[in-house]
Amino acid sequence: MTHDSQNQHLIVFQPSGRQGYALEGQTLLDAARELGVEIESICGGQQTCGKCKVLIEAGDFQKYGIVSQKENISPLSDGELAYWQKRRRDPGDYRLACTARVQGDLVINVPEESQARKQIVRKSATVRAVELDPAIRQYFVKVKRPDLNDNHLGDWERLKVALQETHHLQNLQIDFFALRGLQDVLQKGEYEVTVTLWNDREVVRVQPGYAEGAYGMAIDLGTTTVAGHLVDLRTGAMLATEAMMNPQTTYGEDLMSRISYCTMNADGLDKMHIAIIEALSRLVKRATRAAKLQPEDVTELVIVGNTVMIALLLQVDPTPLGRVPFPLVTNDAIDLKARDLGLEVGLGANLHILPAEAGYVGADNMGVVIAESPHIQDDIHLIVDIGTNAEILVGNKDRLLSASSPTGPAFEGGEITHGMRAAAGAIEQVRIDPQTLTPRFKVIGHDRWSDEMPDEKIQAAGICGSGMIDLVAELLVAGIIGPDGKFAHETPSPNVRISGRTREYVVATAAQTSSGREIVITQRDIRAIQLAKSALYTGAKILMDRRGVDQVERVLLAGGFGTHIDKQRAMVIGLFPDCDLDNVYPVGNSAGDGAVLCLLSRERRQRARELARWIEYVETAAQPEFQERFVEALHLPHSIDTFPHLKGLLPEPFVGDSHFW
Amino acid sequence: MTHDSQNQHLIVFQPSGRQGYALEGQTLLDAARELGVEIESICGGQQTCGKCKVLIEAGDFQKYGIVSQKENISPLSDGELAYWQKRRRDPGDYRLACTARVQGDLVINVPEESQARKQIVRKSATVRAVELDPAIRQYFVKVKRPDLNDNHLGDWERLKVALQETHHLQNLQIDFFALRGLQDVLQKGEYEVTVTLWNDREVVRVQPGYAEGAYGMAIDLGTTTVAGHLVDLRTGAMLATEAMMNPQTTYGEDLMSRISYCTMNADGLDKMHIAIIEALSRLVKRATRAAKLQPEDVTELVIVGNTVMIALLLQVDPTPLGRVPFPLVTNDAIDLKARDLGLEVGLGANLHILPAEAGYVGADNMGVVIAESPHIQDDIHLIVDIGTNAEILVGNKDRLLSASSPTGPAFEGGEITHGMRAAAGAIEQVRIDPQTLTPRFKVIGHDRWSDEMPDEKIQAAGICGSGMIDLVAELLVAGIIGPDGKFAHETPSPNVRISGRTREYVVATAAQTSSGREIVITQRDIRAIQLAKSALYTGAKILMDRRGVDQVERVLLAGGFGTHIDKQRAMVIGLFPDCDLDNVYPVGNSAGDGAVLCLLSRERRQRARELARWIEYVETAAQPEFQERFVEALHLPHSIDTFPHLKGLLPEPFVGDSHFW
Repeated sequence: MTHDSQNQHLIVFQPSGRQGYALEGQTLLDAARELGVEIESICGGQQTCGKCKVLIEAGDFQKYGIVSQKENISPLSDGELAYWQKRRRDPGDYRLACTARVQGDLVINVPEESQARKQIVRKSATVRAVELDPAIRQYFVKVKRPDLNDNHLGDWERLKVALQETHHLQNLQIDFFALRGLQDVLQKGEYEVTVTLWNDREVVRVQPGYAEGAYGMAIDLGTTTVAGHLVDLRTGAMLATEAMMNPQTTYGEDLMSRISYCTMNADGLDKMHIAIIEALSRLVKRATRAAKLQPEDVTELVIVGNTVMIALLLQVDPTPLGRVPFPLVTNDAIDLKARDLGLEVGLGANLHILPAEAGYVGADNMGVVIAESPHIQDDIHLIVDIGTNAEILVGNKDRLLSASSPTGPAFEGGEITHGMRAAAGAIEQVRIDPQTLTPRFKVIGHDRWSDEMPDEKIQAAGICGSGMIDLVAELLVAGIIGPDGKFAHETPSPNVRISGRTREYVVATAAQTSSGREIVITQRDIRAIQLAKSALYTGAKILMDRRGVDQVERVLLAGGFGTHIDKQRAMVIGLFPDCDLDNVYPVGNSAGDGAVLCLLSRERRQRARELARWIEYVETAAQPEFQERFVEALHLPHSIDTFPHLKGLLPEPFVGDSHFW
Repeated sequence: MTHDSQNQHLIVFQPSGRQGYALEGQTLLDAARELGVEIESICGGQQTCGKCKVLIEAGDFQKYGIVSQKENISPLSDGELAYWQKRRRDPGDYRLACTARVQGDLVINVPEESQARKQIVRKSATVRAVELDPAIRQYFVKVKRPDLNDNHLGDWERLKVALQETHHLQNLQIDFFALRGLQDVLQKGEYEVTVTLWNDREVVRVQPGYAEGAYGMAIDLGTTTVAGHLVDLRTGAMLATEAMMNPQTTYGEDLMSRISYCTMNADGLDKMHIAIIEALSRLVKRATRAAKLQPEDVTELVIVGNTVMIALLLQVDPTPLGRVPFPLVTNDAIDLKARDLGLEVGLGANLHILPAEAGYVGADNMGVVIAESPHIQDDIHLIVDIGTNAEILVGNKDRLLSASSPTGPAFEGGEITHGMRAAAGAIEQVRIDPQTLTPRFKVIGHDRWSDEMPDEKIQAAGICGSGMIDLVAELLVAGIIGPDGKFAHETPSPNVRISGRTREYVVATAAQTSSGREIVITQRDIRAIQLAKSALYTGAKILMDRRGVDQVERVLLAGGFGTHIDKQRAMVIGLFPDCDLDNVYPVGNSAGDGAVLCLLSRERRQRARELARWIEYVETAAQPEFQERFVEALHLPHSIDTFPHLKGLLPEPFVGDSHFW
């Protein structure tokens, strides 16, 4: 193409401000492409998809030295008129870039929906902006009909020619199942088809006619709960969210018991694998049904989960993960065909699993990193994702460390006398009157506190993790237990029972519970909480030491547990190292958010792979100082002096003795 | 590496004659690699596989100006001694190139079995040499054990490091099923494993310890018969050959009836697809059992077949192939995971299907081209592969044309009164006494002619294709039928029956048959043979015209039918254009041979893809002259003058009249 200066016009694309010269008669789409402005186009210039809508800005743009006016663009084409008539809308200043041709200098505004790489912002505790660049893109093409004289090209070869000619796509492959159905689809679509392309190279789906719509699922495969988000890959919109229990809980509540189940039962791995695959297929079915779609419309999936959950998903024996040195089968991201796992989604769909940092810091933690991005922050962050294991991250853009601490099941209600998960009936908040030492509490499912409603309506069933933290903090503040966690002997309250070997506090009376029996917290329960919080605290402190910081500037509490706990009371018991409470944020299901971001952005996936190797994993339990620090951190809290702003809340004297049970 | 001239020695590798300098102390394997001499090595220098055995030639090689002697190589290492002791053999002048080190000038003989790209020659009608370069190669490696301090590399990552360090392999991927089993295999092999690599890039199998052995299946998927060859991919040796009926014959004998079955039955395609997949799995099981292997040892397959058989294999509706313009779903070669078809072979195994030239000239014909290589010949070749359709090739290295002619089922015994396939009981050869006009014949299953054995032992069941050709030729030579194929009226023989509408010749008496009824050939049968041979002849002649030749220099008759027919009698009836009978060769199952060659050589696969596009396909039936030439060619033979050497055989007068039935 020769650029004859006489036939060139200055074109400025907004909002990017990119400018350059276009030839007289060139389409705006071609002009944009040459200037590196990416405009959406599915139909490839057929004037049917309307994705390439742009606005012609009229006016005297002195900044650029040009006057842009509607006369500088070719008149509305028949195809454009048909497009707008079909939608019964007035085009206004909108033009389809694929057909509007340059006739003079122009300022063009590319609205956000027409930009090929849109910035989208996801609502969340922390603002998460991402450039929309999913692995899946769609293209509409008209394919030449077969012809005895066309060199006997097959359907796939003619489709490749069409994709090359219309969309400049080259070196394409096709998934076998897309190839298998190709002839049928071409005939149904009368040789007009919509192609779904994965990673710019593999055709994974072909649909008859113009069939806009590419969908993905981001799945957070938790030990207890499985949550899936159905996402529109063209807009980033969340179309449906579904959650269910992980059916593997039948075989074991926590990671170690599932590993044991595999070790003890020859068919244990297969059973748990099949259970989760069937569950995921159900999850996809529910989510697609909610959005009036079909499971086969899902052509891309991203899954995060801890390393044991990922092993069970892949039908890989997790037994080695149960012992030193916790070897992973791979630490890198995995791409595989979802059909190879038997998942009922699109036949050509790819499943992407985020990389792992180490044997016990898996794809779920990488999801947290991608969502919270501590690697681009100046502030030193402490991020904890609390479950049976707590994943801990400490650092900022210069250096980031990770660890996993075995908090045990206490925060999830496990091994607690009346412990339960955060479900309806769970006591999730507790307050103890400092004078009367009597409790009031809030139960999941009710808006009101227990003292604001009749006893028989409360139906408390147990205490969940956040309730336990509230309880221990309140017991401490009320002086019912000491900083060593032990029940104080002289406590004038009928709720405190100390006699013989019994040491317990009554939280809910028999009348307030669904079982008709009291709900109590025992000395043993308090100790379990102390052990759990100490594991977390010690892990965080060791990482801080390694990172060379005394204090963190922000604490992010990830996961459902992090969302529900009272951060003030969590700090009272010393769940995490001290930090200005204003800089402690519950951030919700960060792992799942990270999965969604990776579904929308190939750059994030690549970033995750790099970060997984960059983040320094520390085997905290293997550090020589671990044991000593762990014992120290069992105290509630280990030193009151670090919480001056809490002093008013706390009773005196408040110095822990070093004699522990 | 710096090449200090003082420490260099001249090394000559035989038989290639490659020479160059090697550093003092360098292993012969490294020296060879640097000089571009490819020596086998699986174990990567562990001195266990013995693949890199070379001979040290002692003597004064004046040609190279060096004296090569055993002192110029390092002494036998402990590993080498162990290798030979384990095998209870004397090493003689053999050394393992991976450990023997250069200490002076040397002439090294690399025996054929140690050459990485061996020339192998397959026994066949035509000599077929191929450089052994299969898509599958094996590598033995020792993998680092997992270690808490090794940067938390996964098993796959440590395997990649080992493959890079030991075998210089880079940018590898791993099949999901190989990844799934990796941890288990590493443990079983105590971190020594044998890796099977596909196309230098994908790990498709990992086995514990040293597990030499890579196997492939070459399958000729015929309309009637399925044949499979189990091949040792490291030596090219054929380990087992198995054949079975194509179970799809239940649904239709020929291509058109199978297409009809798909069109008429909603589940027709699925039924036929499942039938062939199950049959292929059985075929693999039988072949591997015969070679004392397991189906999962098969890690590569090549399949040839006509376009309809390939469509049914892939579960692609063949209906479009039944009508103009016979569109293929792809004309290119296909690589897919055999598991995606449900084939019971190695889980990571790849299935390669040869490309097609056009809608009716498929992978089977490409197999023939690869096996017979007309594209590298000076002589003009005519190659015919006769089945329900006859595939025809005409040309040489300058230009090659192909066509498909609808010969119909007559040559396979279809639509013939007493026609049958070439199976036990079939009359395959016939001679008619020119004086008495009585026949004698040979039946498949007997060595003797019918007149050399008692009638009741013969048990003839029908006439197969080669028997029909003999019969028509003999009837013609005996004057029982004329050149127009019609029964002559005055024939003084009790075997000829002409009365009313009956026109037939008795081939076998009731006493000679298994049914106790006569076997005859009727006027209608003769017409069917005439139609079939005319289709073939006309197709060949149109290609010859298009190619600009009056005569071909070689005729190759491919396929089982080509092997069994009497080429002299075939020429008598004008089955193919005239050619010196000495230059007419039956070449056996060329399509299957081509599949084997493609299993052994990636270069041949690539060549097939190029040739499929280079060969000019001619839609002979669409040529304006087809009809006229077809009618002309119905005569037996169309002109006696072209067969001067046959004159003695044939009765006079022998000029066909143009009045045909």
